[in-house]
Amino acid sequence: MIIILKPNSDKEKIKDLLDSLKSRNIGIHYSEGKFVDIIGLIGDTSHLDINSVMASSDIIETVKRVSEPYKAVNRKFHPDDTVVDVDGAKIGGQNFSVIAGPCSVESEEQMICIAKAVKKSGAKLLRGGAFKPRTSPYSFQGLHDEGIRLLLEAKKETGLPIVTEIMSLTHIDLFADVDVIQVGARNMQNFELLKELGKCDKPILLKRGLANTMDELLMSAEYIMAGGNSNVILCERGIRTFETATRNTLDISAVPLLKEKSHLPVIVDPSHAAGIANLVEPLSKAAVSVGADGLMIEVHNNPPKALCDGDQSLTPVQFDHVMEKVKMLAAFENRIM
Amino acid sequence: MIIILKPNSDKEKIKDLLDSLKSRNIGIHYSEGKFVDIIGLIGDTSHLDINSVMASSDIIETVKRVSEPYKAVNRKFHPDDTVVDVDGAKIGGQNFSVIAGPCSVESEEQMICIAKAVKKSGAKLLRGGAFKPRTSPYSFQGLHDEGIRLLLEAKKETGLPIVTEIMSLTHIDLFADVDVIQVGARNMQNFELLKELGKCDKPILLKRGLANTMDELLMSAEYIMAGGNSNVILCERGIRTFETATRNTLDISAVPLLKEKSHLPVIVDPSHAAGIANLVEPLSKAAVSVGADGLMIEVHNNPPKALCDGDQSLTPVQFDHVMEKVKMLAAFENRIM
Amino acid sequence: MIIILKPNSDKEKIKDLLDSLKSRNIGIHYSEGKFVDIIGLIGDTSHLDINSVMASSDIIETVKRVSEPYKAVNRKFHPDDTVVDVDGAKIGGQNFSVIAGPCSVESEEQMICIAKAVKKSGAKLLRGGAFKPRTSPYSFQGLHDEGIRLLLEAKKETGLPIVTEIMSLTHIDLFADVDVIQVGARNMQNFELLKELGKCDKPILLKRGLANTMDELLMSAEYIMAGGNSNVILCERGIRTFETATRNTLDISAVPLLKEKSHLPVIVDPSHAAGIANLVEPLSKAAVSVGADGLMIEVHNNPPKALCDGDQSLTPVQFDHVMEKVKMLAAFENRIM
Amino acid sequence: MIIILKPNSDKEKIKDLLDSLKSRNIGIHYSEGKFVDIIGLIGDTSHLDINSVMASSDIIETVKRVSEPYKAVNRKFHPDDTVVDVDGAKIGGQNFSVIAGPCSVESEEQMICIAKAVKKSGAKLLRGGAFKPRTSPYSFQGLHDEGIRLLLEAKKETGLPIVTEIMSLTHIDLFADVDVIQVGARNMQNFELLKELGKCDKPILLKRGLANTMDELLMSAEYIMAGGNSNVILCERGIRTFETATRNTLDISAVPLLKEKSHLPVIVDPSHAAGIANLVEPLSKAAVSVGADGLMIEVHNNPPKALCDGDQSLTPVQFDHVMEKVKMLAAFENRIM
Repeated sequence: MIIILKPNSDKEKIKDLLDSLKSRNIGIHYSEGKFVDIIGLIGDTSHLDINSVMASSDIIETVKRVSEPYKAVNRKFHPDDTVVDVDGAKIGGQNFSVIAGPCSVESEEQMICIAKAVKKSGAKLLRGGAFKPRTSPYSFQGLHDEGIRLLLEAKKETGLPIVTEIMSLTHIDLFADVDVIQVGARNMQNFELLKELGKCDKPILLKRGLANTMDELLMSAEYIMAGGNSNVILCERGIRTFETATRNTLDISAVPLLKEKSHLPVIVDPSHAAGIANLVEPLSKAAVSVGADGLMIEVHNNPPKALCDGDQSLTPVQFDHVMEKVKMLAAFENRIM
Repeated sequence: MIIILKPNSDKEKIKDLLDSLKSRNIGIHYSEGKFVDIIGLIGDTSHLDINSVMASSDIIETVKRVSEPYKAVNRKFHPDDTVVDVDGAKIGGQNFSVIAGPCSVESEEQMICIAKAVKKSGAKLLRGGAFKPRTSPYSFQGLHDEGIRLLLEAKKETGLPIVTEIMSLTHIDLFADVDVIQVGARNMQNFELLKELGKCDKPILLKRGLANTMDELLMSAEYIMAGGNSNVILCERGIRTFETATRNTLDISAVPLLKEKSHLPVIVDPSHAAGIANLVEPLSKAAVSVGADGLMIEVHNNPPKALCDGDQSLTPVQFDHVMEKVKMLAAFENRIM
Repeated sequence: MIIILKPNSDKEKIKDLLDSLKSRNIGIHYSEGKFVDIIGLIGDTSHLDINSVMASSDIIETVKRVSEPYKAVNRKFHPDDTVVDVDGAKIGGQNFSVIAGPCSVESEEQMICIAKAVKKSGAKLLRGGAFKPRTSPYSFQGLHDEGIRLLLEAKKETGLPIVTEIMSLTHIDLFADVDVIQVGARNMQNFELLKELGKCDKPILLKRGLANTMDELLMSAEYIMAGGNSNVILCERGIRTFETATRNTLDISAVPLLKEKSHLPVIVDPSHAAGIANLVEPLSKAAVSVGADGLMIEVHNNPPKALCDGDQSLTPVQFDHVMEKVKMLAAFENRIM
Repeated sequence: MIIILKPNSDKEKIKDLLDSLKSRNIGIHYSEGKFVDIIGLIGDTSHLDINSVMASSDIIETVKRVSEPYKAVNRKFHPDDTVVDVDGAKIGGQNFSVIAGPCSVESEEQMICIAKAVKKSGAKLLRGGAFKPRTSPYSFQGLHDEGIRLLLEAKKETGLPIVTEIMSLTHIDLFADVDVIQVGARNMQNFELLKELGKCDKPILLKRGLANTMDELLMSAEYIMAGGNSNVILCERGIRTFETATRNTLDISAVPLLKEKSHLPVIVDPSHAAGIANLVEPLSKAAVSVGADGLMIEVHNNPPKALCDGDQSLTPVQFDHVMEKVKMLAAFENRIM
């Protein structure tokens, strides 16, 4: 971290600032220049907040980080791609994996029917919401533990590992047999939940918040990794902008940028990003070409009757058609599906 | 809720749609027109999701809510202002109340010093963070239970009721003696937390999320009220936009709009909205004039040494100056402080 | 357009509203229902503004367009893809065309060098700014008529048709020999300019504004087409959001949505969208896969010395590498380059 | 401007960079430190673009402006408030002035009726659109020169100076008798228009663009002032965000920030910001309290019949009521109306 002082700063105030920094146990290097004075902070400054440093003296012109505030997720320190292995289904590296299933778990018949269909089409993992974050308290909130039970039934039937969302750390015991725990966009900065998930050894699928920057997503992943859990999968699922033609705006540029900054795998959720079923195919293809490590797609046996998000769900037949395109493109890009 | 059908829709599909709606136990009224057919849904439709209804048939042109999806928070059904009474400090109605204190609780000396100062200047409640939501896992995370203890010490010393943020429902027992529980912007859609807070009888200060609409804020308040707790205070604290000159963009229009839609009190947090100490005064005055019911202001005895958000905190002297202006303006507006 | 009235509206006010609508020469169909009354507006309502209709009476619950406000650009009325033919270089339909060149025209040597290079790599058109929209009045503003002269020199040398931006309709005579006139993002709603360009017969490359919706982009294209010029190419170049890691946020979903709504060709400008040279390749590939009709890429012989936008420009060597990837992917997608 | 080099940069590259900077006629000061090397650029760097400097060498860690890129509008160099005097109506300094009138000029009767009414209520200037920027080419586009003639009639009748929007520099001759020329939000970065307006001596009312930062607004004002015209009035009128409950989001914080950065007067347009008539009063009051220098309010004798923006217009009676509140508050704030 570099602190640039205002020209002709008061010597007494410079001394105060240096003393204050020393008292925080930071190595400092003060360099007096003819044009401007700067202070270099040496060592690990990841616990320092730029705003707090800025506020610590009125002689500071600006503060600039020269290293990123994240360490564990940083590709600089871990150049190789992380590959998350979920019971044989690999996400990251040269692999390209598709997670598919309904928005909400509704019934055993539904789950098994969809699980078989998506497996046949090439999905490697099964998703389904047991706990549903809904804007309204009067909307269907999910089947809870019964939902997880049905997912496990579908897993037993098909062998597909399951991915489902956690909404509260008080539910964590219910997730004992879940293969991948999903943190939804609304909980991306539920830091207490992230800390708890850092302590378990299950893969965590971390979705980007609707108003969160890429750096904030990486910092949330850092919360999990700092706790000791390095199986984190990042998911770009659209951000909130002024455009209303799509539910959210898929930030496709986030994929190559996140992969440049971090070694973690990055997947794309075209269903939630667009909120429109017939955009799933073109956005899935864009995700493959831009370098994503996988997709998360909503599939429902009967979208018009879906209890949630029917307008963005594909039927198994539509999903199969999309997967055909995705498989050809992934092969073209030398990805293993 | 009104469903407008596409012109010349297939009779069979119309029948299917009507049957499907009837099976959801919704009263329906079908009106065949020369130009367009419409279906009116009668009764309580607050559990229906517009997107799901849209997806339930391909003959639907559009779906329009004619009543709001929120009931308990709706001014239509509760025309009178709700006044939240916190140990004698009233928020709402003709009252104008100021909550002040440091971003983070740091020490007993700090808390008592600030509590005395803000009380003298006219604050009616004391704020201070014991659990701090920080972007980085390496930043100061708050003093936790010790922080709450120090807040209670400051209350004992000054009589000011205390407001502090909860970050996880597993901590709820620690908040037994807290007067107002704050839900931060990042947890505005942490629905499991909201449900739990709906079961307690303490006032809840609910901050608007950075990317959440006013309607979503009201729906989150509805979660709390649906659980039985009607002591909810809404807080506008800035939304995330493209502008970077301020930390967030204070959506001042939200104050009169929220008060029109709901009977709940609405306060403004100018410190977090702007992130700049010298904007607190003008924004506080704007809040009074626009009709807010109170303010939440960060005050620190020594901002340069603050462990968090020093750049937006006022000193007690600056706060006293702002309060002088606020008091005069509140008197001009016939508000009771 | 459909007007839904509030329940139990005053009969006198309904009559007033019907009279007022009739006086605007709109066919109306009034349908009294048991649940709600609606008024259907028959015929061409594209000149009606929803907000104005809403304001015309206080008994109106809501107004809903059932047909789009654009006609000439609407795919419904022109199902076939428009193919813009620029001197043999085709944009639209099965064709995939790349426009390349420097941000600013700087010198004859530069232009000819770059023109030859991009042609060799497969670009079909040459771009270069002669009039530059710069935030600061003190920044380099372009070479103006001399810039256009140099572009024409490069065209003479290579045969590549040229694309360059117009900033004022007073300059239009200088564009007599230009092949494609570009309207920049900042002028997307400079309606007087659009009207003027509607009168000429040159292809117009219309870039989406930083804060403009897809529908607004289509309405701006409608301005040009309403004037009689049907050679319009739409360009997605990123929108302004809260994310600062990229200069703008490329709205990749806009490509398939615009192509669904309109018959006009849609190209992508990955250079301006991201503002980062090494994102040009992944975003270009995403554009091919999502179904775009072409690309517009900044290429500079010496980016570090570029007078403008050096940080997002590719060198001719880098461009050649990107084009190799783009050509293979376009072939895979059965596009003609 | 300060350039911070990457640690351990290649000596040869440093020499190249210094030579390149020298060749641009910039004074430089190179300071070699133990921790980091920096280069200070001395003198006027307002013509330098940060992105271009960044791109000029790969040994640059970061570039930081230590002075603002604007000079003429900068309060640092002109500490006193600019007061724009329009025929005796003063905007800026201690004055608080209200501009009122219809969105569009429609008829002589309308204009004179409204002009008389708003004058009686205390407005100091009359607004009315003769050239209307409309999203759709099929919407009413204004009465053009006839509209200006009617405004001048209303001025003759009432003595109120007139404000009207220019949409193209080809129309400038029609504005010879207009008192204040308005540049609309969509033309805020129509730089050719700004340059032309810099050459005239009329006051210019410059509205902030929907997606433009405060700094960009100041840079556009700088375009006008750099041409020699120092009579510029800034207008905050809402920015585009994800919130749809209001037409735009009024960025109230922009008022004190713009006034801190610049000596130019800043007014607020609550009508366009909110797009809702009954928000005009609370937002007008917020504008007074936050320190704005005036308001621009839409008033129409018969909003339901307005050809444009009827839903946000006040009737003369409503306007009179708002003005009563504004006058009392302005008096409280010691502003002269």
